[in-house]
Amino acid sequence: MTEQDEEFMRRAIGLAQAGIDANNGGPFGAIVVKSGEIVGEGCNQVTSTNDPTAHAEVVAIRNACRRLGSFQLDECVLYTSCEPCPMCLGAIYWARPKQVFFACTREDAAKIGFDDQFIYEEIQRPIEERHIKSINFLRDEGLAVFDNWENKADKAEY
Amino acid sequence: MTEQDEEFMRRAIGLAQAGIDANNGGPFGAIVVKSGEIVGEGCNQVTSTNDPTAHAEVVAIRNACRRLGSFQLDECVLYTSCEPCPMCLGAIYWARPKQVFFACTREDAAKIGFDDQFIYEEIQRPIEERHIKSINFLRDEGLAVFDNWENKADKAEY
Repeated sequence: MTEQDEEFMRRAIGLAQAGIDANNGGPFGAIVVKSGEIVGEGCNQVTSTNDPTAHAEVVAIRNACRRLGSFQLDECVLYTSCEPCPMCLGAIYWARPKQVFFACTREDAAKIGFDDQFIYEEIQRPIEERHIKSINFLRDEGLAVFDNWENKADKAEY
Repeated sequence: MTEQDEEFMRRAIGLAQAGIDANNGGPFGAIVVKSGEIVGEGCNQVTSTNDPTAHAEVVAIRNACRRLGSFQLDECVLYTSCEPCPMCLGAIYWARPKQVFFACTREDAAKIGFDDQFIYEEIQRPIEERHIKSINFLRDEGLAVFDNWENKADKAEY
């Protein structure tokens, strides 16, 4: 890690602290850096914005993508004050930054009441065994839209 | 499944079709229903809004939470035109609807170029073996914010 990495991580940690000071949500902050410049920032805003998806990483990724005018974070680095939860990890894989740095671990988060372990386990469970009941039906009607997508001439693929 | 379930799923599938017709993004739609009423809707808007997190389920969950003034979808049912990806599944577990219905499967989505399998595998991998390099440092400084959270008197827990 370079001194610049430390500086960026301290910024992410600082956003976590500022977020709880302002009662935005849980103690989490994140930034996105491209070519040595911060292009996106975020802190957890779940409780203040009534948005369960407003984790620091998601907020920072959305913020950076908006600023960069792209739905991909090519050549970007994400610094987050805590190991991403499965939702954020999914968001990271869709956004595709080249690297992630994190400070606290998922075990640290679990100790203060933010336990992702249940979600990690549920994601791996066969659908019929999940705690949130999940049922498949009308597949044929859904597939018709997929066919239309396949045949669409002017689609923006991603 | 009831006739009402079918009606709601057709609405989600209809949003998927409307979304591709309007060039909003991929062929995915979702709705959130509470007490027999639609309280949130969404279609994939990744490419049109440059937001990699704007999957149909995330958009519908955010929309419903905003309308309900809550970051939890208690007693709600999510209808989505396709099996949720790991990011959306994470969002679902944070929002906690009581049930999920889906039409197309992840295998159907993979066949038209939306392959989640890689993300499912990455989430399970030990951090040091992931394809997006992920490094832990400055944990002690991050933990100081967690301590501050623990000691904060007026925090909104979730």
